[in-house]
Amino acid sequence: MADAAGREFFTTRTVGEALAGFRPRRRTGPETVALRDALRRVPAGPVTAPNALPGFARSTVDGYAVRAADTYGVSEGLPGYLTVTGAVHMGAEPDVAVTPGAAVTMPTGGVIPPGADAVVMVEYTAGVMPGTIEVVRPVAPGEGVVRADEDAKPGDEIIAAGRPLRPQDLGMLAAAGVTSLPVCRKPVVAILSTGDEVVPPETAELRPGQVRDATASALAALVADAGGEPAYGGIVTDDPGALEKALRAALPASDMIVISAGSSVGVRDETANAVGRLGGPGIWCHGLAIKPGKPTLLAECEGVPVIGLPGNPRSALVVFRLIGMPLVRLVGGCTVPPPDPSMRATLARDLASATGRLDVVQVRVTGGVAEPVFGLSALLSVLTEADGYIVIPEEATGLDGGSEVTVILYG
Amino acid sequence: MADAAGREFFTTRTVGEALAGFRPRRRTGPETVALRDALRRVPAGPVTAPNALPGFARSTVDGYAVRAADTYGVSEGLPGYLTVTGAVHMGAEPDVAVTPGAAVTMPTGGVIPPGADAVVMVEYTAGVMPGTIEVVRPVAPGEGVVRADEDAKPGDEIIAAGRPLRPQDLGMLAAAGVTSLPVCRKPVVAILSTGDEVVPPETAELRPGQVRDATASALAALVADAGGEPAYGGIVTDDPGALEKALRAALPASDMIVISAGSSVGVRDETANAVGRLGGPGIWCHGLAIKPGKPTLLAECEGVPVIGLPGNPRSALVVFRLIGMPLVRLVGGCTVPPPDPSMRATLARDLASATGRLDVVQVRVTGGVAEPVFGLSALLSVLTEADGYIVIPEEATGLDGGSEVTVILYG
Repeated sequence: MADAAGREFFTTRTVGEALAGFRPRRRTGPETVALRDALRRVPAGPVTAPNALPGFARSTVDGYAVRAADTYGVSEGLPGYLTVTGAVHMGAEPDVAVTPGAAVTMPTGGVIPPGADAVVMVEYTAGVMPGTIEVVRPVAPGEGVVRADEDAKPGDEIIAAGRPLRPQDLGMLAAAGVTSLPVCRKPVVAILSTGDEVVPPETAELRPGQVRDATASALAALVADAGGEPAYGGIVTDDPGALEKALRAALPASDMIVISAGSSVGVRDETANAVGRLGGPGIWCHGLAIKPGKPTLLAECEGVPVIGLPGNPRSALVVFRLIGMPLVRLVGGCTVPPPDPSMRATLARDLASATGRLDVVQVRVTGGVAEPVFGLSALLSVLTEADGYIVIPEEATGLDGGSEVTVILYG
Repeated sequence: MADAAGREFFTTRTVGEALAGFRPRRRTGPETVALRDALRRVPAGPVTAPNALPGFARSTVDGYAVRAADTYGVSEGLPGYLTVTGAVHMGAEPDVAVTPGAAVTMPTGGVIPPGADAVVMVEYTAGVMPGTIEVVRPVAPGEGVVRADEDAKPGDEIIAAGRPLRPQDLGMLAAAGVTSLPVCRKPVVAILSTGDEVVPPETAELRPGQVRDATASALAALVADAGGEPAYGGIVTDDPGALEKALRAALPASDMIVISAGSSVGVRDETANAVGRLGGPGIWCHGLAIKPGKPTLLAECEGVPVIGLPGNPRSALVVFRLIGMPLVRLVGGCTVPPPDPSMRATLARDLASATGRLDVVQVRVTGGVAEPVFGLSALLSVLTEADGYIVIPEEATGLDGGSEVTVILYG
């Protein structure tokens, strides 16, 4: 949108609009990884069981494989007697079948021998004479037995696409003999810092007016947490053209670009200009109804999401957590994001908020009470002192002290 | 404890007793890591700010640095007039001071020039003629300014020991110029599997009675999630002596040992015997009041925690999550564990439980309703189908359908 003088205008969007509506088309392709490197990776497709699992009927208890019918009606007062005709050994095929009136010694996990349909727990038997046991409790068919396909039938979907693999998922894949699988490549997220005052963290002595780049290190960590691969793009000077050049250099190798912009209005405008000159469809919004974090820019350049973050480190990290991490997951094929740690707490004091704007308030939590940590957006210590944050939604005008709130905890 | 015949007896302990009372003395020592490798690492000591942060008084807005007293009493109807005597540039020391009646142009983040004690936002000013602005709102001293030590004073603790580093903590360290720091070495956790039926996941074709090792892969992932370094120790046969030999081989290089034991009573006894023959103080408990997971063994051998897990993969993973992961963190110097993701949900049906035993029930959560996933302890699919679990504490005899429960979610 442009006015008669050719100046561009961009509407401010809400966080909800951005999460639902800003969907750049970039997606990473599949790559194959070994099972032991697959934790939290996102399966590129569903995985099905090649065979039945566990693959054979197994005993779930230590005891005796029997025909259930041979135990009907037995009790402590009127035990049944069965002849022990053999034993099953772990990891081996039974060399004996269970005939009427017979019992075969079973270890937990052993193969149910032919003819048997249940296993009596050893606790409900007693050896009365060599080769004979008495049984004091009846068993039903199937009791003490896990079926050959009870964990999975051949062709069952054992792992869904789009959900990061959890420890138990790796166990299931190992059980099925799947020792490598296609996952979505980790999105490469270029992190560019801007601002003439910004110097690398390695800088030992600062000149007056200089600050070390705090945001890039924290952003890289958030990218990794979202399943992405951070790529430090360095610090770009405020010189017009330098940012555009850096963006054009980063674009071909990046699945997403994050610009940690200087905090002054001039630098922010320069960021918008540089992003606007890249490939389309271009800028989606310039301004987000969130506090802190209003001066946020969202753009899609040649399919790649580009986020221009506010200059204050704290604002930048708040926005990247709410908007950037979901984008990293989207590009990386994740359709079922992992849950955030959260807890219910009692809000210690009233919090005011403006309608139409989402407020993110940092809190310390002690004994179930959430105490807001106040301070300027420029302060990083507000974030390091916080245990988590609460969100005051757009439609609210504030929250009352004493009310119950959900705190998203920093994990 | 031993009876007259020399047989050893071990009491069953509760999960609470184990978490509070089983505290093997092993701790990992410090090592130095670069900041960019420090996410989730546990600082070996507190980190203090070498200098004040941000290090100079900065403007938090775009506007004009002024003497606050020069703006007292101004209003829309009665503006004040100030002479613009210069400008501050980003990253550079001011070359101008603010004298009475003067104003200096300020970018957000710029150094407050000498003589100024506040910054008027550009929105509350107007240029009336070249070199002069009018100010329509008064500012108080300190307004629009972040103090030189407002984020941290020299010597302030900016990072606590014992809490895994979060993204914002890396940002704070970068701001302070701390680009490497001492952290606790990751505990090396040896994972030994036992059972004649267990074969490596790579095994393409299973013989009757064989199962692939599902537990080791999942345990390795849980170890990594707890900040440890998994070391696969392979599969040990049930041959008496083989486990003891494997344990003695693993002990010198391990900070913790996990034995994924076969499920039959004989194998479990053999595990206890082998562990009992290692260095002291030895076995702490053999049997845990938890369902699933009762046949759990906890021991301390030469200071190193040794956990013998139940043979069923599902039971093993439940116990390792509740008992093993806190031990990995303990050994690795973590005193403030990261929070688990959790949510409140309505329990879909009644759940019975025995007093004195902690029950872990797997659940699927849909629309705020937690539906238990039932199935044998032998089934891994119960875990892969679950979104999380609920805990029925020792003192409860069950939970009522319709009651509100806390679900610990799998992240």
